[in-house]
Amino acid sequence: MRFWRQVLELALILRQFLFTSDAAEELKHVISKKNHELVYLYNSNLVDEIWKEARPEPPNKPVRVHGLKYAGLDVASKLSSLRSELVQAGSSAIIVTALDEIAWLLNLRGSDIPHSPVVYAYLIVEIDGAKLFIDNSKVTEEVDDHLKKANIEIRPYNSIVSEIENLAARGSSLWLDTSSVNAAIVNAYKAACDRYYQNYESKHKTRSKGFDGSIANSDVPIAVHKSSPVSLAKAIKNETELKGMQECHLRDAAALAQFWDWLEKEITNDRILTEVEVSDKLLEFRSKQAGFLDTSFDTISGSGPNGAIIHYKPEPGSCSTVDANKLFLLDSGAQYVDGTTDITRTVHFGKPTTREKECFTRVLQGHIALDQAVFPEDTPGFVLDAFARSFLWKVGLDYRHGTGHGVGAALNVHEGPQGISYRYGNLTPLVNGMIVSNEPGYYEDHAFGIRIENLLYVRNVETPNRFGGIQYLGFEKLTYVPIQIKLVDVSLLSTTEIDWLNNYHSVVWEKVSPLLDGSARQWLWNNTQPIIRETV
Amino acid sequence: MRFWRQVLELALILRQFLFTSDAAEELKHVISKKNHELVYLYNSNLVDEIWKEARPEPPNKPVRVHGLKYAGLDVASKLSSLRSELVQAGSSAIIVTALDEIAWLLNLRGSDIPHSPVVYAYLIVEIDGAKLFIDNSKVTEEVDDHLKKANIEIRPYNSIVSEIENLAARGSSLWLDTSSVNAAIVNAYKAACDRYYQNYESKHKTRSKGFDGSIANSDVPIAVHKSSPVSLAKAIKNETELKGMQECHLRDAAALAQFWDWLEKEITNDRILTEVEVSDKLLEFRSKQAGFLDTSFDTISGSGPNGAIIHYKPEPGSCSTVDANKLFLLDSGAQYVDGTTDITRTVHFGKPTTREKECFTRVLQGHIALDQAVFPEDTPGFVLDAFARSFLWKVGLDYRHGTGHGVGAALNVHEGPQGISYRYGNLTPLVNGMIVSNEPGYYEDHAFGIRIENLLYVRNVETPNRFGGIQYLGFEKLTYVPIQIKLVDVSLLSTTEIDWLNNYHSVVWEKVSPLLDGSARQWLWNNTQPIIRETV
Repeated sequence: MRFWRQVLELALILRQFLFTSDAAEELKHVISKKNHELVYLYNSNLVDEIWKEARPEPPNKPVRVHGLKYAGLDVASKLSSLRSELVQAGSSAIIVTALDEIAWLLNLRGSDIPHSPVVYAYLIVEIDGAKLFIDNSKVTEEVDDHLKKANIEIRPYNSIVSEIENLAARGSSLWLDTSSVNAAIVNAYKAACDRYYQNYESKHKTRSKGFDGSIANSDVPIAVHKSSPVSLAKAIKNETELKGMQECHLRDAAALAQFWDWLEKEITNDRILTEVEVSDKLLEFRSKQAGFLDTSFDTISGSGPNGAIIHYKPEPGSCSTVDANKLFLLDSGAQYVDGTTDITRTVHFGKPTTREKECFTRVLQGHIALDQAVFPEDTPGFVLDAFARSFLWKVGLDYRHGTGHGVGAALNVHEGPQGISYRYGNLTPLVNGMIVSNEPGYYEDHAFGIRIENLLYVRNVETPNRFGGIQYLGFEKLTYVPIQIKLVDVSLLSTTEIDWLNNYHSVVWEKVSPLLDGSARQWLWNNTQPIIRETV
Repeated sequence: MRFWRQVLELALILRQFLFTSDAAEELKHVISKKNHELVYLYNSNLVDEIWKEARPEPPNKPVRVHGLKYAGLDVASKLSSLRSELVQAGSSAIIVTALDEIAWLLNLRGSDIPHSPVVYAYLIVEIDGAKLFIDNSKVTEEVDDHLKKANIEIRPYNSIVSEIENLAARGSSLWLDTSSVNAAIVNAYKAACDRYYQNYESKHKTRSKGFDGSIANSDVPIAVHKSSPVSLAKAIKNETELKGMQECHLRDAAALAQFWDWLEKEITNDRILTEVEVSDKLLEFRSKQAGFLDTSFDTISGSGPNGAIIHYKPEPGSCSTVDANKLFLLDSGAQYVDGTTDITRTVHFGKPTTREKECFTRVLQGHIALDQAVFPEDTPGFVLDAFARSFLWKVGLDYRHGTGHGVGAALNVHEGPQGISYRYGNLTPLVNGMIVSNEPGYYEDHAFGIRIENLLYVRNVETPNRFGGIQYLGFEKLTYVPIQIKLVDVSLLSTTEIDWLNNYHSVVWEKVSPLLDGSARQWLWNNTQPIIRETV
């Protein structure tokens, strides 16, 4: 038992900066129920002792400015809105630690983390100033100027804890989102507040306890525990961000048309291709597009049974082949300078089975139902989740993941706070300007996987009526890539659904064909032909 | 201020037995925030002092046994299941105060409350016995025998509080659903427990506090605060109850066919009829059906703009007329010996406007979508609510009430715990055997109201697949009354929706025509003819 207790302590020593405060508290609670104790240590890191020089260097590629033509709103305006929220919440400072929130707020991008254009940093915003904690070697002259213009000071990355302690010592009330801020910072602020209160009591001879916000004395530091306001502000895209997302999606669609055209030909010519080779070729096409930076996540290239593994990652040597006998699920995305993409298509290069077609069609019907949904303002995403499942449910099928996640604009491919899922606890309403994925699926273990994913943005809809005087909302598509008609059992579709598919393909042609020539353009033409509706 | 404080105290003196404990606690909390105090008084009732002899006699009609051929399960079996739950919850007794729960558990019915076949009573079930607190003059010999067989003692209605005190004094832990048990009983038990603890401490010289369940000493009384298990057991109907519900719905449908046939003829003959006259005539037809007992709620007979008032009750003298120029919404139901009905139809006896037809059709589409829903086990009702609204939402319309409520079997027309509503807090899953109403609507202020309501029961569905190895569920209809085709804009309907309507009407004819003859049978024939689908 003693041994295990030590291991648990060590684990937490390592991870104080890596665990959010909420996660650490939960761990502490669980451990304490088993009569174990969680010990926080600050001044040693045992793993450092172990790997010594073998420790990889921290990433040090330069940070770049995410220009106004992509961001749409300057840093001063974003900080000004944030400061209004600080005032309203009765706090004098906020610590922002989510890297995508920092990147969005400061119109900066980096490449410290694969697929996510963010940079390791902490940010403290006060009413009259802001400090960015970052490795100075990544800060170019351009970034330095950019930050100065917004009155943001640069501080060493490792000085965050001492600055947090200073904030408490100066009596600043700090907005802390404990679901994203790490345990080290929360604990440092708490301890510094405690020292402040003790000092205050001995000076003023009155009892004071303020960390939990139970007193309103303005010169006593209080932690304001609220969700980060940056998360919601970031999720609601402005028109410039939406324009960037639209444009990069068309270039991405052009790359995909070239890729599918290539892949179909290879398979027709009986070339043996692995899932990894296919994925690499897709990257090659994408990387030729203007503004391409990176993939937005590890490509899920799943042939046959591998398609049923939801977060499958093929590895060279062990992976399967893509051929004319199996369904092929391809979930991929890219980071461009102006936006982020995430798309899944499922195709068959030979003759799909009746079963595969039925399942594909029901997934498609769910996709269409969600795409076409109109709903009143203040509707949480989960209310729409059943629309995407109902056609599968009718025959006893379902999928074990959410239907939609938020997506950043030239940022993380997964972001909150909204979502479309059967997790009914997320009450965040869908708001005009938010981006969500629409990705119902169906996975048959050891057989095949199907997913059809477009990105959508939420927009106000001009309905003929406005019952209750409120706004109604719907979705606009960002993704314009053909859906394989061969896999559709047209007899299951309603007239409305056939119209949706034909209309979608007509718009795909209209928007993407100008970016293509040669055989890829021909591929797009072939794959955007309308279904002829049979007369009943 | 003083005056108002007195009024508030008086209000609570009156209502100790009428307010649930939860409601009283909430009131207490709200009042205390305004620096008012809530004073409970036990031994006086000031309203009694005021109305003296003018006070109406309490209802004293005899109680009747709800026979096994309707109830399906004998009292001993029901009590046995309940006692298993008591043991599991660690309580030795339960107080049941919801009148429909007592009626269901004891297979008794009464007529103390208009529309609800229940009787004023309290019930205490212990592991080895049970006591029914009831006005003995209502207990016939048959009921007396019935109760004796199930080992249930009869006690005076007013002795409930002293028995609750006895329970505590005997050290019994009592299951109390504070959302349904009144404040008088909860407070009496709490006070008696406190006396017990004081006594216990002085005897045992140890500190004991048990009312909140914080100690597990088995000879100390503890309140077990949990939802009533009877509520859920009652909501899940057995096959006999469902059979009774099905059969009374067909007789109810026959009465409605006679009624609609009569009303159409009257209006064709330019007879001037008020909403009340129409409602009275409906009662006349219903009361001729076998096993009719009462209406199940005040009939909502709403012509034109009155249809937009959701709980409209027409009054003689002031009410409107039913004629060929307005939409007419009729929401009504009956209590039969074997079941309870609740149905709404909206009709037009002249020429409906395009607007009325569009709204009616969208309400109908929502009704069909919910009726046809298939969903996995453990799905809360609110997940399906959006199905019923989505067609209205598309054009910016909605309705401000839930889509479905539970219905008792020969019991209250509204019951929990399940519901289908945009109130996302009710996580009760829909379970095989539950009954819900399906009643989307649309209400245009000062113009018209539309509602189409059938009762449904939840049933296990044999889907071709069972993803995740779980059960899928759907609905079966209880209500078989034509939906007016004149109000349907067929061009808005999908093939599936037209099929649903034609199939429904074909089953209505098949099930209800054998109960009719003459012109009512002809009316049913005329109103169950299929829509001929136009070739696109």
